[in-house]
Amino acid sequence: MLGALFFDVFGTLVDWRTSVARESERMLAPSGYNLDWLAFASAWRGRYQPAMEKVRSGARGFVKLDVLHRENLQEISVDFGLQDVAASILDELAWTAWRRLDAWPDVSEGLQLLRGKVLIAPVSNGNISLMAAIARHNVLSWDAILGAEIARDFKPNAAVYDAACAAFDLPPERCAMVAAHTSDLVAAASRGLKTIHVSRPDEHGPGKGEGKPLAPVDFAVGNLIELARVLPS
Amino acid sequence: MLGALFFDVFGTLVDWRTSVARESERMLAPSGYNLDWLAFASAWRGRYQPAMEKVRSGARGFVKLDVLHRENLQEISVDFGLQDVAASILDELAWTAWRRLDAWPDVSEGLQLLRGKVLIAPVSNGNISLMAAIARHNVLSWDAILGAEIARDFKPNAAVYDAACAAFDLPPERCAMVAAHTSDLVAAASRGLKTIHVSRPDEHGPGKGEGKPLAPVDFAVGNLIELARVLPS
Repeated sequence: MLGALFFDVFGTLVDWRTSVARESERMLAPSGYNLDWLAFASAWRGRYQPAMEKVRSGARGFVKLDVLHRENLQEISVDFGLQDVAASILDELAWTAWRRLDAWPDVSEGLQLLRGKVLIAPVSNGNISLMAAIARHNVLSWDAILGAEIARDFKPNAAVYDAACAAFDLPPERCAMVAAHTSDLVAAASRGLKTIHVSRPDEHGPGKGEGKPLAPVDFAVGNLIELARVLPS
Repeated sequence: MLGALFFDVFGTLVDWRTSVARESERMLAPSGYNLDWLAFASAWRGRYQPAMEKVRSGARGFVKLDVLHRENLQEISVDFGLQDVAASILDELAWTAWRRLDAWPDVSEGLQLLRGKVLIAPVSNGNISLMAAIARHNVLSWDAILGAEIARDFKPNAAVYDAACAAFDLPPERCAMVAAHTSDLVAAASRGLKTIHVSRPDEHGPGKGEGKPLAPVDFAVGNLIELARVLPS
């Protein structure tokens, strides 16, 4: 029987794309900037995997995702004509935009129902303070915040899944990774965890997300309320 | 202005003495054991500091407090005539007794009020799964579980306080340690944290606890509801 559910956060629980676009516009539009804010959010997110890869490969020591978000913003700033924005404003943008991410509509109720059945924790590449802020922004309650920072590595490296199971003193077969990204689930399965795919067909824009898993998983659900209905207590 | 409150747990938030006594009696009395259960709880707890000292001094690598609780139970078992109890029962006792600790009466309401003002986290020597279980037992909600396991060291070593501040990305002067033990607060102050003493005069039995701080602290309160009243939003 499952003892814990581990949740991917960006894309699976929160709609980073429209939220980052909205927060970027809120901070930069008053200074006269008028970008394609959704394209800007996607470009920023596009630097996410390459930046983490340096840490995963061992070329760079572990740093919090907040640090990578700031660096990635710097990298794309010229492409979007933001080279004259004060560093302090970019600091503030990188810090707050990724904290004010709105959850998909099913998440608050779904997590509350699921927490009545098993331990729940984010197992995200986001750092602890970032996860705590996203939880507050959406009034979510976790049993603990696990993930990259306690493992000092990034998914899909094995250490992140292993550290999460170890923190809850559960064997991997009693833990399930819940994600809208097949790659995350394939990596979790390779460490012995169960896998649950959540459909998020609009993550990267309408119809541009994983509506279905792209590889075999243990369960595939449309949203977290549906997951709560089928998960035995 | 304070950004986070870090809480000691055993003694400060939960009444380990009467809870461990009750749980030990519940598990062992059906097999005919009739001990002085409060003395048993105190003896068990009495092994706590010496066991951690081996890790703090570097003589032993980090292990979770659950492991020390089990070893300490073994050490006192002969003194209390428990040498014939099955190892599996002692395993279960060591695991559950320290998870079913009842909070002092002000804690649930106090933490809820405080969480409306600042980030809150346990910074205990207890491990993550143990802290998550105590929170569930008492229906407490934390922003994150920090403390010994993320620092891989035990209080009052500096690494535990430093790791907690770092996890929330706050300078130590914007964090306060809340404890009923002056020694914990003195150590936190030496790392730059603010210090808040909570009176728990009955921790070790009626009148046998720290009713007042034994060294200078920044604030001294009678309970967490009082702390919530005086802490600015």
